[in-house]
Amino acid sequence: MDKATMTETIIAAKLEKQLSWEQMGKDLGMSPVWLTSACLGMNSAPAEKAAAISEYLGLGKDVATALAAYPTKIWDQAVPTDPLIYRLYEVVGVYGETLKEVIQEKFGDGIMSAIDFSMEVDKIEDPKGDRVLLTLNGKFLPYKSW
Amino acid sequence: MDKATMTETIIAAKLEKQLSWEQMGKDLGMSPVWLTSACLGMNSAPAEKAAAISEYLGLGKDVATALAAYPTKIWDQAVPTDPLIYRLYEVVGVYGETLKEVIQEKFGDGIMSAIDFSMEVDKIEDPKGDRVLLTLNGKFLPYKSW
Amino acid sequence: MDKATMTETIIAAKLEKQLSWEQMGKDLGMSPVWLTSACLGMNSAPAEKAAAISEYLGLGKDVATALAAYPTKIWDQAVPTDPLIYRLYEVVGVYGETLKEVIQEKFGDGIMSAIDFSMEVDKIEDPKGDRVLLTLNGKFLPYKSW
Amino acid sequence: MDKATMTETIIAAKLEKQLSWEQMGKDLGMSPVWLTSACLGMNSAPAEKAAAISEYLGLGKDVATALAAYPTKIWDQAVPTDPLIYRLYEVVGVYGETLKEVIQEKFGDGIMSAIDFSMEVDKIEDPKGDRVLLTLNGKFLPYKSW
Amino acid sequence: MDKATMTETIIAAKLEKQLSWEQMGKDLGMSPVWLTSACLGMNSAPAEKAAAISEYLGLGKDVATALAAYPTKIWDQAVPTDPLIYRLYEVVGVYGETLKEVIQEKFGDGIMSAIDFSMEVDKIEDPKGDRVLLTLNGKFLPYKSW
Amino acid sequence: MDKATMTETIIAAKLEKQLSWEQMGKDLGMSPVWLTSACLGMNSAPAEKAAAISEYLGLGKDVATALAAYPTKIWDQAVPTDPLIYRLYEVVGVYGETLKEVIQEKFGDGIMSAIDFSMEVDKIEDPKGDRVLLTLNGKFLPYKSW
Amino acid sequence: MDKATMTETIIAAKLEKQLSWEQMGKDLGMSPVWLTSACLGMNSAPAEKAAAISEYLGLGKDVATALAAYPTKIWDQAVPTDPLIYRLYEVVGVYGETLKEVIQEKFGDGIMSAIDFSMEVDKIEDPKGDRVLLTLNGKFLPYKSW
Amino acid sequence: MDKATMTETIIAAKLEKQLSWEQMGKDLGMSPVWLTSACLGMNSAPAEKAAAISEYLGLGKDVATALAAYPTKIWDQAVPTDPLIYRLYEVVGVYGETLKEVIQEKFGDGIMSAIDFSMEVDKIEDPKGDRVLLTLNGKFLPYKSW
Amino acid sequence: MDKATMTETIIAAKLEKQLSWEQMGKDLGMSPVWLTSACLGMNSAPAEKAAAISEYLGLGKDVATALAAYPTKIWDQAVPTDPLIYRLYEVVGVYGETLKEVIQEKFGDGIMSAIDFSMEVDKIEDPKGDRVLLTLNGKFLPYKSW
Amino acid sequence: MDKATMTETIIAAKLEKQLSWEQMGKDLGMSPVWLTSACLGMNSAPAEKAAAISEYLGLGKDVATALAAYPTKIWDQAVPTDPLIYRLYEVVGVYGETLKEVIQEKFGDGIMSAIDFSMEVDKIEDPKGDRVLLTLNGKFLPYKSW
Repeated sequence: MDKATMTETIIAAKLEKQLSWEQMGKDLGMSPVWLTSACLGMNSAPAEKAAAISEYLGLGKDVATALAAYPTKIWDQAVPTDPLIYRLYEVVGVYGETLKEVIQEKFGDGIMSAIDFSMEVDKIEDPKGDRVLLTLNGKFLPYKSW
Repeated sequence: MDKATMTETIIAAKLEKQLSWEQMGKDLGMSPVWLTSACLGMNSAPAEKAAAISEYLGLGKDVATALAAYPTKIWDQAVPTDPLIYRLYEVVGVYGETLKEVIQEKFGDGIMSAIDFSMEVDKIEDPKGDRVLLTLNGKFLPYKSW
Repeated sequence: MDKATMTETIIAAKLEKQLSWEQMGKDLGMSPVWLTSACLGMNSAPAEKAAAISEYLGLGKDVATALAAYPTKIWDQAVPTDPLIYRLYEVVGVYGETLKEVIQEKFGDGIMSAIDFSMEVDKIEDPKGDRVLLTLNGKFLPYKSW
Repeated sequence: MDKATMTETIIAAKLEKQLSWEQMGKDLGMSPVWLTSACLGMNSAPAEKAAAISEYLGLGKDVATALAAYPTKIWDQAVPTDPLIYRLYEVVGVYGETLKEVIQEKFGDGIMSAIDFSMEVDKIEDPKGDRVLLTLNGKFLPYKSW
Repeated sequence: MDKATMTETIIAAKLEKQLSWEQMGKDLGMSPVWLTSACLGMNSAPAEKAAAISEYLGLGKDVATALAAYPTKIWDQAVPTDPLIYRLYEVVGVYGETLKEVIQEKFGDGIMSAIDFSMEVDKIEDPKGDRVLLTLNGKFLPYKSW
Repeated sequence: MDKATMTETIIAAKLEKQLSWEQMGKDLGMSPVWLTSACLGMNSAPAEKAAAISEYLGLGKDVATALAAYPTKIWDQAVPTDPLIYRLYEVVGVYGETLKEVIQEKFGDGIMSAIDFSMEVDKIEDPKGDRVLLTLNGKFLPYKSW
Repeated sequence: MDKATMTETIIAAKLEKQLSWEQMGKDLGMSPVWLTSACLGMNSAPAEKAAAISEYLGLGKDVATALAAYPTKIWDQAVPTDPLIYRLYEVVGVYGETLKEVIQEKFGDGIMSAIDFSMEVDKIEDPKGDRVLLTLNGKFLPYKSW
Repeated sequence: MDKATMTETIIAAKLEKQLSWEQMGKDLGMSPVWLTSACLGMNSAPAEKAAAISEYLGLGKDVATALAAYPTKIWDQAVPTDPLIYRLYEVVGVYGETLKEVIQEKFGDGIMSAIDFSMEVDKIEDPKGDRVLLTLNGKFLPYKSW
Repeated sequence: MDKATMTETIIAAKLEKQLSWEQMGKDLGMSPVWLTSACLGMNSAPAEKAAAISEYLGLGKDVATALAAYPTKIWDQAVPTDPLIYRLYEVVGVYGETLKEVIQEKFGDGIMSAIDFSMEVDKIEDPKGDRVLLTLNGKFLPYKSW
Repeated sequence: MDKATMTETIIAAKLEKQLSWEQMGKDLGMSPVWLTSACLGMNSAPAEKAAAISEYLGLGKDVATALAAYPTKIWDQAVPTDPLIYRLYEVVGVYGETLKEVIQEKFGDGIMSAIDFSMEVDKIEDPKGDRVLLTLNGKFLPYKSW
């Protein structure tokens, strides 16, 4: 079973059981963001987590195997068009140099890892309009000389 | 004075006074991230903040005027090459669909604003390697029908 | 049912019943522009509107469900080739900087939302050739400092 | 005097006299949007209007000549990055097919001209946040067979 | 029947009947260039012409309906690779600025319409090698101020 | 003297003498289109024509030399943005396949040369709006087998 | 039968009969390079050659018809990735300006035709490593003034 | 002295002495193609050849040093626009797959080197129009397994 | 059997037999990197190696034939998105000029062959985190003059 | 002093003193590859190394400061054209999927860091032609779930 079929299978089961990623994450003890990325095929799940997700949804071993496979991460749009995703791209364009200045001032020359990395989404209720809170947490990796 | 000259002038004054963005933000009562973006010319500063920044650095009225001007936000690289900025772009590529799922599940159909928006950078000390914590806070804007 | 199949199904029903978007909008009490965008899969319809559209066309619940689903908005051509759509793109290219000047002079630093947004198309009859009147109505979102 | 120098000269005079495009348009009896586009070098001004603009700003004949010259309209960014202009581009991407459906249903096969064309910007005050009203008015041009 | 199927059906009938576009145009009283573009799906045919073409080829009503549908004009190659088409693209690249100078000198600031437009292909026999004569005839549209 | 300086020099002399390309072509016995392309640096002029153009405008030998130099033909915009030039590009996109069909039906497999080529611009006066007539005349080059 | 199916059919017959392009060219009295390009669908074969190729391979009339059809020449990769083809692209990049200098010095302003053109591949045996000899032979086409 | 200045210097000296690349190659005992590529800065000249070229043209040691420097080979146009160079690019596009078939049939899996490589340009006089003969000679490099 | 089917067949057999590339390389006496590239269809295998691989996996002659076929090497993403592959691309971007300096200082003007080339992957165990050791070994090819 | 001026200054001093990167690396106890990348402005040097390099070359404090500054790593060519650098890009294209297979088989799901990374260049003398040995050494970073 390839990743695309796996995602379709999982989405169908999730719809049938009327589950949310939030609920699934809570029941399985996993972050909803990570869980979603694994189910969309953009991250591999460790074997026991893959088994747990598959079993929780009442799906077979082939789904667990597909969840555990190492994905090739491909996106087609160098500049994404969906408005929600474009706004994130715009943040990188507008604030990229700013973040470079501030992070490297705080940590020295290096980068924030996108591999040793986690991310959460929270909702802040606000009478003037609710707010989305994204938290990105990545290990700082210093450049080294040799 | 255009924004590019303004940025050069501010960076030179900051170097001479051996200031950090962190320190400047604390002294001026502004977020270091926002302050940096205004000084790099990617945001306009309200008139009184523009005056305060310029005065704090011992610079003239033309710098304050330039800080208050409304910028045209342009970035040349559709796919950024600097490794620190690329990693952020990669996060958008790898997790964009995931964030769309999770945000829209939590909030309904809509987007996170990149205009009514703020961002902070924090350092989490960790013996296995310090971590960068980025917090993005944007108003949720629902799509409307008409 | 995915959005593409939904659009095909709706277009087929509309042809069979010899309806226009104009007529459908009038009968359903919805703007023809918004209605068309929802039927083409570029906007989600609130549940009761989705049900109303589907019932009006004599279609099933799966169409209503597909209308209510949150779309991923993708367009393939960074520069559109169809002459009608290209002319709109040309307007953005030729008048983009002008609109930035005029809007920001009137409202301050900020943008016109494309989310909290509506649009209408009208026909002005004119013996020298009829004219198209497009009206775009978007909330102004000011940049904020923090 | 080329168009770029002309624009710089006009902007400098406008700043010195503390004029707005709105005020200039009212005083000169011209639409502020068209006036701005001519001053930014994206439209040519008929000779008498070019003379009137230049005289009004206390500028010389070379500015009037430059205003009257036929421009080569060039924009560098196939996908604009400035958020205000990008939102307009996004509207073309999201609603392009919709407008094609609705306009061609109303008028037959053809396009809305971007040459025999005018545009206005209005402000709608609203306690929940002011709104931008863009009105585009273009001649309908039918395709012809031969 | 979509435009692609329509084109295939027409080409097959044309081959079977061993017709040329030239002959078809003469018999139907239509320009061979316009007729070809309608049959290739790049122009819509008015209802009576669509019926005439379809009947002439011994094809059904669905072909007439498809010929009359308004096409979405899409081409995939920003720079065409087929040598015959590339040479035309090269002419636009090499002579574009020249045509702008000469047309605008003759007509004022404006464009040649590609909508209110016709084109013919003729053959000039020449012992040193026959020559292709392309004639493009488009309405001049002046820019207007407002 | 390089081609860019040559063009500037010629345009300045032309403006000072209040000449049109039309007039220059008539006086010099050359096609206005070809003459313009040579003066814009997109074609080389044979030595005696180069001398005649330069002398006619009261310019020096360096201009004649530059006119006679073989140009490297470069255009920066794969898709041109100026509306007059874009419309020509659009014609190639919309009618390219049509012209391929019609030309190859008339002449066999081959192309229309863009080198052994000439072009004229004429004005057709018309009470409903003047029309531009472009005539392209290129040698047919058949493919050969070997 | 379209060109793609034709190529598959020919390649299959060639494999079955264990023929080489070299051998086929010799037996049919055609250049192996041209023969290959016709069989790969990048050139049309004159009717009698098309018949000869098809008969030689024991294939039907539909193959001969497809060989004789005029191809639309399309390649997808603006920069080819296959190393053998990339090296040829690299030669054009590195030596393009050089060839322009040398050819135009020898022949005057003009181009080498890619239509009235032939090409051969030879093998030069060499103990230090065999060498490939490509010979391109194209008619010189001078630019003309008019 | 960088390569660009070197080229300008050499071209100026060549013009002053009214030399051709052909003549220079004959006098210096070098291939005109290679000599041109070295003078245009796309190849480095071995020290003694660099000295010979510079001395022959009456230029100084800095020119010889620049000729001997190892160039970084950069071309800006992925698809060249100059017609002479484009035709070569077209040959690669149209005949690339053909050459791959024919070369690999003759030599096995591998490529023709663009480094261990030479090229000549010859003129074939022909009453029907002279012909350009390009000869490319590159070492065959077989792929190896390991 | 084409290369894509061949790869699928091999991967399926490898999974069924629970083999690693490492183990296969060791058992067959081939480098795991080369073996993988041949099985992924990016290199051809000499006939006896192709037979050995196919037999080892219990597959048929068609797999051996496909392994021995000369591949057309195509990759779709000019800038790869998968993080593992992007990091290698980033190394070429960041260190390309450096490698050019160091290699050409050591070897003279020329390149490192990507054809007469081999590569190995090793694992260096390290308590602070294991390290990947890539070794690239390519023949130096000097540029030659002629 | 910016990085570009710094590089020019260092290259000039290196030329004057007739040093090689090899020799400089040996004398300064630094890897020649890293040293070159720092001097070309693609890596920052720790303060004491920056001082040592500058002093060794007889240059001032401003060079040391520039060496220590954190660079913004930018490369303009998504696909590099210089043959030496292109061959490395080709290796990534041809072997990227292979390396992903082999590395992830050996290490699990993750990447080879391009930050915690070093690289060496060695020369292997060989009578059939010397060989370049590139050794890349990067920390393996496993993906983590959260």
